[in-house]
Amino acid sequence: MTGYSIATIPGDGIGQEVIPVGQRAAEAAAAKHGFTLSWTEFDWSCQRYAETGQMMPDDGVDQVRNHDAIYLGAVGWPGVPDHVSLWGLLIPLRRQLNLWANVRPVRLLKGVQSPLAGRTPEEIDFIVVRENVEGEYSEIGGRLYHGTDQEMAIQEAVFTRRGTDRIMEYAFQIASERKASGYRGHVTSATKSNGIMHSMPFWDERFEVMATRHPEIATSKYHIDILTAHFVLHPDWFDVVVGSNLFGDILSDLGPAVAGSIGIAPAANINPDRTAPSMFEPVHGSAPDIAGKGIANPVAAVWTAAMMLEHLGEVEAAKTLERAIEVSLESPVTRTRDLGGTADTAPCAQSIIAAIGQ
Amino acid sequence: MTGYSIATIPGDGIGQEVIPVGQRAAEAAAAKHGFTLSWTEFDWSCQRYAETGQMMPDDGVDQVRNHDAIYLGAVGWPGVPDHVSLWGLLIPLRRQLNLWANVRPVRLLKGVQSPLAGRTPEEIDFIVVRENVEGEYSEIGGRLYHGTDQEMAIQEAVFTRRGTDRIMEYAFQIASERKASGYRGHVTSATKSNGIMHSMPFWDERFEVMATRHPEIATSKYHIDILTAHFVLHPDWFDVVVGSNLFGDILSDLGPAVAGSIGIAPAANINPDRTAPSMFEPVHGSAPDIAGKGIANPVAAVWTAAMMLEHLGEVEAAKTLERAIEVSLESPVTRTRDLGGTADTAPCAQSIIAAIGQ
Ligand SMILES: CC(C)[C@H](C(=O)O)[C@@H](O)C(=O)O
Ligand SMILES: CC(C)[C@H](C(=O)O)[C@@H](O)C(=O)O
Repeated sequence: MTGYSIATIPGDGIGQEVIPVGQRAAEAAAAKHGFTLSWTEFDWSCQRYAETGQMMPDDGVDQVRNHDAIYLGAVGWPGVPDHVSLWGLLIPLRRQLNLWANVRPVRLLKGVQSPLAGRTPEEIDFIVVRENVEGEYSEIGGRLYHGTDQEMAIQEAVFTRRGTDRIMEYAFQIASERKASGYRGHVTSATKSNGIMHSMPFWDERFEVMATRHPEIATSKYHIDILTAHFVLHPDWFDVVVGSNLFGDILSDLGPAVAGSIGIAPAANINPDRTAPSMFEPVHGSAPDIAGKGIANPVAAVWTAAMMLEHLGEVEAAKTLERAIEVSLESPVTRTRDLGGTADTAPCAQSIIAAIGQ
Repeated sequence: MTGYSIATIPGDGIGQEVIPVGQRAAEAAAAKHGFTLSWTEFDWSCQRYAETGQMMPDDGVDQVRNHDAIYLGAVGWPGVPDHVSLWGLLIPLRRQLNLWANVRPVRLLKGVQSPLAGRTPEEIDFIVVRENVEGEYSEIGGRLYHGTDQEMAIQEAVFTRRGTDRIMEYAFQIASERKASGYRGHVTSATKSNGIMHSMPFWDERFEVMATRHPEIATSKYHIDILTAHFVLHPDWFDVVVGSNLFGDILSDLGPAVAGSIGIAPAANINPDRTAPSMFEPVHGSAPDIAGKGIANPVAAVWTAAMMLEHLGEVEAAKTLERAIEVSLESPVTRTRDLGGTADTAPCAQSIIAAIGQ
């Protein structure tokens, strides 16, 4: 029987409550579809930082490198500055494992309320593909005249042809795969080439080149300002949206908001070259305000597990998980409170597991 | 009687149809409130570019400098690349006249449909204040290894303490003024200091300094990604929002989208030091698809004229214009088609002018 080894990092707060649910759900799907999962747990977290001064050990990245995937809950806790928790864990994993694609589905599920008036699940169903290792997120820059009136801060964005081409190519591939299963086959590029930025005319040029390599896929491009407006006014225009590190970051929070799913959205940090394991983490954070109360919504963790199984090639198992989520979201008795239901974590989880068995 | 001299640049497309309406409305308000307006028209446009090779003459900026304000329609036309029309007109005006603050009200008016479910005018009423001359929009950067596989594009963002402090100070001033007229007195900062960018921790530091100077104003800060989500999920959280050139650009398109008003929103490019005239332009573009048909919506131009009169100190006249807009929007007979009404430009304009007289 095929087996996959997964490194789990439950992390902080509700990460520790929802990751076990995702594991149980993935196990149930594995049993149904005939493969096995083995889990190695890592206690990397802000709690570990408080105890040891490190979010993860020095050789942390190497410890997870020989797994088939990484399944992460949430990282961050009051008292530990963001730059510690992120730079001590999330960013080194993204960069050293070459997780250059960040992928987030934006889908209005039945049982979930979109903040937009009158939108149906058919109208909000797209994928944001974000460049995840270069662009606006570069270490280059700093301060001059620190602490004086002449002080300034410089930040350099670096766009390489290799980094730009590969994320676009990946977006086109996803669009092709989606087209094969009935979607429109359309890629939208997030740009800002009407302004002043040197990077974006370059981005546009590469997008045109990549588009000519995929004549079967239709394309459009919008400047990021009006694109955020279109997310709200015309979510039905989108199939696959590709953006730079910063633009993709923005769009992959705005997208789930539009789909009413900030609390349940999954995310994948992918190494499409498969030279290292990819990392799967829900969009939601550690939620200190509700942590430890047994009321966290486990749907994002299960949806994230579905993305992981799909990446591992277990497409049917992934579909089983997604269907189980939708069943559990249909009734307010099994929906958690954040979605207008009445359930705690446990009955919601139970209903998902039960639906997998059916 | 006080008199103001205005430089008008109707520009391209529907700019030429709506600016005359804004002028008539402003004249009517001036007559009512006891001041005069004199207009000098400039034909700077893509049409001029086609005829002369220049959007405006070499000394264009100086020609408008000795007016009290600049009233601009829309610039841009198919066949003329954005960088020509923008760099030939809009950007030099913004920069050489030191229009370092870009201000856009986001307000759900009665008679206008928000794309958000169940939102009322009371819940969407805030102002986006955007830094307009530095930050991510810097000329610094370029290409290396052009045309090869090693090609890269570099873009440098530059944040100065002077540029950062003054835009934040301006935002706090607006919040204070609004507080005096019944608003909450709250400034939200758009940041992204949890990532990697050197500029944003600097931005946060300066925001904290400016906040301590205004203890009467409450503050919050959000990373730009989740902030765009909050615009959609909680537009009622905002009073004044301050952002960098790029973040402000994004938020000031997303905001009007949320308020259902991309087509009717006004914008002001302000020189708060009053060392040069400020420039007022509707958010909408030249709309080549409907230009020349007499069906353009003149509301944005009138609302923009209201912002101009307010900046000139004619606060009551500005209120008169805003009220007139609201009256005209109330009935589908005087609303234009883009807002679900049946009116052409002329009857809509007529109803606004009539309402000013009342
Ligand atoms: C036209 C373009 C350069 C401009 C900008 O990005 O500043 C526009 O989006 C705006 O907001 O006025
Ligand atoms: C936590 C932060 C560094 C991160 C980012 O900006 O990449 C987050 O917003 C995300 O999208 O995962």
